Amino acid sequence: MRVSVIGGSSIDDETYRQAREVGRLLGARGHTVVCGGLGGTMEAVCKGARDEGAETIGIVPTERRDDANEWVTTPIATGVGNARNVMVVLNGDAVIAIDGAAGTLSELGHALDFHRPVAGLDTHDIALDGFEAVETPEDAVEYVEREA
Amino acid sequence: MRVSVIGGSSIDDETYRQAREVGRLLGARGHTVVCGGLGGTMEAVCKGARDEGAETIGIVPTERRDDANEWVTTPIATGVGNARNVMVVLNGDAVIAIDGAAGTLSELGHALDFHRPVAGLDTHDIALDGFEAVETPEDAVEYVEREA
Amino acid sequence: MRVSVIGGSSIDDETYRQAREVGRLLGARGHTVVCGGLGGTMEAVCKGARDEGAETIGIVPTERRDDANEWVTTPIATGVGNARNVMVVLNGDAVIAIDGAAGTLSELGHALDFHRPVAGLDTHDIALDGFEAVETPEDAVEYVEREA
Amino acid sequence: MRVSVIGGSSIDDETYRQAREVGRLLGARGHTVVCGGLGGTMEAVCKGARDEGAETIGIVPTERRDDANEWVTTPIATGVGNARNVMVVLNGDAVIAIDGAAGTLSELGHALDFHRPVAGLDTHDIALDGFEAVETPEDAVEYVEREA
Repeated sequence: MRVSVIGGSSIDDETYRQAREVGRLLGARGHTVVCGGLGGTMEAVCKGARDEGAETIGIVPTERRDDANEWVTTPIATGVGNARNVMVVLNGDAVIAIDGAAGTLSELGHALDFHRPVAGLDTHDIALDGFEAVETPEDAVEYVEREA
Repeated sequence: MRVSVIGGSSIDDETYRQAREVGRLLGARGHTVVCGGLGGTMEAVCKGARDEGAETIGIVPTERRDDANEWVTTPIATGVGNARNVMVVLNGDAVIAIDGAAGTLSELGHALDFHRPVAGLDTHDIALDGFEAVETPEDAVEYVEREA
Repeated sequence: MRVSVIGGSSIDDETYRQAREVGRLLGARGHTVVCGGLGGTMEAVCKGARDEGAETIGIVPTERRDDANEWVTTPIATGVGNARNVMVVLNGDAVIAIDGAAGTLSELGHALDFHRPVAGLDTHDIALDGFEAVETPEDAVEYVEREA
Repeated sequence: MRVSVIGGSSIDDETYRQAREVGRLLGARGHTVVCGGLGGTMEAVCKGARDEGAETIGIVPTERRDDANEWVTTPIATGVGNARNVMVVLNGDAVIAIDGAAGTLSELGHALDFHRPVAGLDTHDIALDGFEAVETPEDAVEYVEREA
């Protein structure tokens, strides 16, 4: 299936490591990663998925698909700025959120509005049905596989 | 100034009353209300603003501006579905959130991402700079007037 | 009614004069002008409409409603770049096209796709139902009043 | 490279045959097809590209990627209606237009606005730089390979 992974573009080393591990686990289990295509969490998760040879779709806010990070196998340019956040979560069957700030919060809202199951790793604490706070990359992947 | 008011389309009577009061206060103080143009909180806040003769801009997700509620003075059709949430908060100088579910959560995220000050009345508990939980419609209006 | 006026942002004096006259006629007959909010044709038509005290809605491609020209009474920021062209024509009951290049061509296509009657003044030659080439600002306004 | 192919969803047998041949030629020469993902021209060109084992990206207007035709290998849901036309041409390095009505006209405009070279087969007659009317699928593919 497709799993959208959302999170900040400016993250610390530990979060990068965690996001890459999420990408690796998704890739190893045959899933395609969908993300916003830029740096930070988006880069880390694509890198992890590519370690396993998986496909990665990067939906960027700009008009240039070259703005996607180099581990994106299918870049999609939108030119619609933050409105592309809607498309990032719409194109996954489930969502994993890692860390993140206001942009990630908007994606969490859109994901739940589209009834996507969401696993959250060290991210916003959301009191809505369909959101589950998890402790590890393994738990995140297990949750989305079970719920999607 | 322009104040975007966000919240659910399906609300109880007490929330409707509160949203209408927010609209009234904004209208009485010369502000223009921006909202998503549909029912529930969006209708209540427009009704309140119209009680005071204020302008109300309703940015609807559909291709039909007739889908706006009857208290919207300037309906804007977008045809972009939930991506219109981005535009609802982008067109205010500040934001007041009332109650609401996942759609409102997405708007909270976009609002803070655009650095809009946000006052929250009985809504999601957000731990990000720029968000302030308030107790009354008066407090909400005071907060946005002070911070915008 | 609302009439969307489309055309280039870089135009010569004669086209500017013509666009302003279209705005004046629309304003004098009680219509609201909708446009892309920027310079050239968009500025000229708003200026003409304001000469008659009419309302003007400017739907800009950027995230800043301050990017609208000073004769726009209701600026709407979209942040979606050229995708805002769709909204410019969607928010009119009819469309007048004046001169223009590729961007205007995209708007002509969207307008006819939404079944809006379109009057064209010195613009692209379109062989589709619903498009009428006209000679003067008066003819343009008459056409859209008759067909919308 | 990526070539966006645009055209109507309701076409006759001869146009279907032609669109499928365009897809075959693009696929045989190693290109990826981008299109709007639905029926008619979009289906025909994907079918042709798949005959040669090529990748096909279908950018659909709805919120459901399942709305893509079965020859799309990478469906992208947008949920933004006709605003997705912008993305269809933005994601190609060049464009081939086949037949088509108003929606195709909007895509031609967006394509030229983004400075994409466009080859037109039995489509609208466009008097703008960057557009070339061609006679055969072979000519169309040659033109976009030479100009992109």
